[in-house]
Parts: sequence; C-alpha cells; structure tokens
Amino acid sequence: MDGTRRPTLDTAFTALSDPTRRAILARLVIGEATVLELGKPFKMTQPAISQHIKVLERAGLIARRVDGSRRPCRLSKPGFEAIDQWLAVMRKAFETNYDRLDHVLAEMKSEK
Amino acid sequence: MDGTRRPTLDTAFTALSDPTRRAILARLVIGEATVLELGKPFKMTQPAISQHIKVLERAGLIARRVDGSRRPCRLSKPGFEAIDQWLAVMRKAFETNYDRLDHVLAEMKSEK
Repeated sequence: MDGTRRPTLDTAFTALSDPTRRAILARLVIGEATVLELGKPFKMTQPAISQHIKVLERAGLIARRVDGSRRPCRLSKPGFEAIDQWLAVMRKAFETNYDRLDHVLAEMKSEK
Repeated sequence: MDGTRRPTLDTAFTALSDPTRRAILARLVIGEATVLELGKPFKMTQPAISQHIKVLERAGLIARRVDGSRRPCRLSKPGFEAIDQWLAVMRKAFETNYDRLDHVLAEMKSEK
C-alpha cells in the first residue's frame, strides 16, 4: 500500500484499543477530514491529534491523500479487511462446534 | 455475564493486540481446552499462559466452566459480538459514502 510497510494485526488492534482513536475513526465514517477538522470536535491539541492519526495510519486503518495544500484523512479499507478476515475465523467457531456445544451444555443442565 | 464486570472495547482490543493471545483464541476455535492443554502446543510456562488467559477472560473473549476438577476455556460469543458491532459501523462507511468517494477520485484521475 503506497510503499509503506505492511501493517500487522498487532499494530491494528493496539490502535483500536484507544477510545480517542476509535472516536477519530467514528468521525471519519461520515467522510474525509483534515487533521485540523478532526481536532476541533475532540478539543485536543494539534500534536495530540496528529500523534493519534500517525498511529492509525501506521496501523493501516486510515489513509491520507494530497489535495492541494490539504491532506485529508479517510478510513482505509484494507486495514479493516485484515481485521475482519481474522475475526471471520472466530465467527466460524460460533457457527459450527460452539453452537452445538451450547446445545449440549443446556441439555446437561436441564437433565440435572 | 456471570457477575463479572462488563468488558470494554479498550480491554478487548488490547487483548487481541498480542500474537500469543490471538494464537490461544485460534486454538480454541477447534473446541474447549484447559490451561494445561493450551500450554502444551505453545511451549509456554504455566504462569505465562495463565496470565494470557486472564487477560482474555477479563476482556470477555473467553469464558471458563467448571467440569469436576477441570476448568476448560472456550471462546465467549458476547465479547466477539461487541467487537463486531463496533466494526459494523466502520463497514457501513465503506458500503456507502466511501465507495462513492472512490468512484469520484477515480474519475478525477482519469480526467487529468
């Protein structure tokens, strides 16, 4: 992706563990925003917001593009897809053996 | 949830940021396992594996049940559902305005 190093699940999940960074991502759901625009609703200092954005960018969760003198941020699909792929393996477990196990455990309880 | 305090997205994402803990979860996809069983394939000390399991349990990602003298671990559906709900908001962004934005940007490029 644009010559940057490949983000890992480690950096992605670490990036998501912070409530401010999740709030930044939630703001970006409604559309692109510059660092300045992102800073306003969060009442943060520019360096603080820039630091959070760097973490999100390195994690592959946001991307920036050049638009004249502006560098708007947006959500980056590949980063979220990598997380989704990992979580899909977990979801599979609930769809198959785990639901069956729930059933068995419920039966064991009702037999007592 | 069994009287335990409600896990937050902070603790859930932090728990998922560690590759060993993700490996433990991946092992649990195939079914329940005790701490002893979980420790074997990972070649870890018992206290190390116990610590990781505690983090996962507090994050609501695994649950344990009493089975005689055994306390097998399993994946906990509510923890993963909380994460999925949050990610669903992000996915929604890509389904709507972001795909449209991709289209607009592609058109701008081809016009240059």
